[in-house]
Amino acid sequence: MKGKGILVVDIGGNNIKLKHADGEERRKVKSGPELTPDAMVVAVRTLVTDWAYDRVTLGCPGAVRGGRLVREPVNLGTGWVGFDFQAAFDRPVELVNDAVMQAIGSYDGGKMLFLGLGTGLGAALVAEHVAVPLEVAHLPYKRKHSFEDCVGQRGLERMGEKRWEKAVHDVVARLQAALVADYVVLGGGNTKLLKKLPKDSRPGHNRNAFEGGARIWEEQFRVL
Amino acid sequence: MKGKGILVVDIGGNNIKLKHADGEERRKVKSGPELTPDAMVVAVRTLVTDWAYDRVTLGCPGAVRGGRLVREPVNLGTGWVGFDFQAAFDRPVELVNDAVMQAIGSYDGGKMLFLGLGTGLGAALVAEHVAVPLEVAHLPYKRKHSFEDCVGQRGLERMGEKRWEKAVHDVVARLQAALVADYVVLGGGNTKLLKKLPKDSRPGHNRNAFEGGARIWEEQFRVL
Repeated sequence: MKGKGILVVDIGGNNIKLKHADGEERRKVKSGPELTPDAMVVAVRTLVTDWAYDRVTLGCPGAVRGGRLVREPVNLGTGWVGFDFQAAFDRPVELVNDAVMQAIGSYDGGKMLFLGLGTGLGAALVAEHVAVPLEVAHLPYKRKHSFEDCVGQRGLERMGEKRWEKAVHDVVARLQAALVADYVVLGGGNTKLLKKLPKDSRPGHNRNAFEGGARIWEEQFRVL
Repeated sequence: MKGKGILVVDIGGNNIKLKHADGEERRKVKSGPELTPDAMVVAVRTLVTDWAYDRVTLGCPGAVRGGRLVREPVNLGTGWVGFDFQAAFDRPVELVNDAVMQAIGSYDGGKMLFLGLGTGLGAALVAEHVAVPLEVAHLPYKRKHSFEDCVGQRGLERMGEKRWEKAVHDVVARLQAALVADYVVLGGGNTKLLKKLPKDSRPGHNRNAFEGGARIWEEQFRVL
């Protein structure tokens, strides 16, 4: 249904989550390694035929540059690069990296590093309402392991909670220093497993993804 | 001498280099591990008594946040953190990280990663005229070595030119991916040793530091 308002779509590896920027209700539909952009658009549009919206924000896993996916998202199907989301939704679309969307929703001043501790390691920097997408997950960390290999889900399973938590504290401190950030917001489903929060960090909230999806249309926010 | 114009000061570990934004002449004076900010200001002001300027840009090695050094620069003396440069120069001062200054001077559109291959590894990202200082030099790279240990001067001496060049190519590709950059500009004295430039990269020029020191006063440029 056309009409005023923003539809926010958070595309994850397991679920696609939906919320209208002006409503409270959330809806979701299955995602997965076979999900094509066509199937996503059909599933989303079918699920919200009773919602009025004139714009869409898409939070996508993977590297985004200039509003376009740079390569196919690792945990989804194919056809995402070059897909015309505006035509498919018949509305203006803001496509952003999912960590960027959550980072913008979590921002409350200063220079903030967002890190998402989930299956992988999402990351983004926000300062003065300017967001910088980061793909630091695959940088080397220890021996043959990347940051994501250690603080992502695989690292948690391999090392156990105690050693994983130690790695998280170390990685957060290193990335905060590397990005010269004032503080760190920790999102993602595994943040709640931490017994102690790293220095200069606070937990994020899942609702911040939807908040970010709405804020991104505000003039003060920019994504580099 | 007061009057219109920008004095650009590039503070390195060995030399302090000076240029007026509107002139061609360069001057320099010795720097070193004992250099205090007082001594720097006296040396600089003495050297340019015949130049008219009403603003000063200081490019400093080390982490800068909100126009202030976060900690003492590694290769200089002490007293830099909290020093009142505006009072000492009796003029408005823009204090920026030296890699940021060179990055801004090298920028010509898109999303650019600047890497300075010198004693250490300076780094900054520029996109849409917004500069992001990066302190990625000390992130881990291989075994017990950081990026800087391998592609900085110590790495060059330890590994020899051939293996060093291989490391440079690998590190440039990794950091370009991590910062989602379109292209890389390679500054620093050791870039000229490369037999082949890494993919998506071009060499910078030393004059870009001075160019950046002037540009930073233009309204379109911001440092996060």
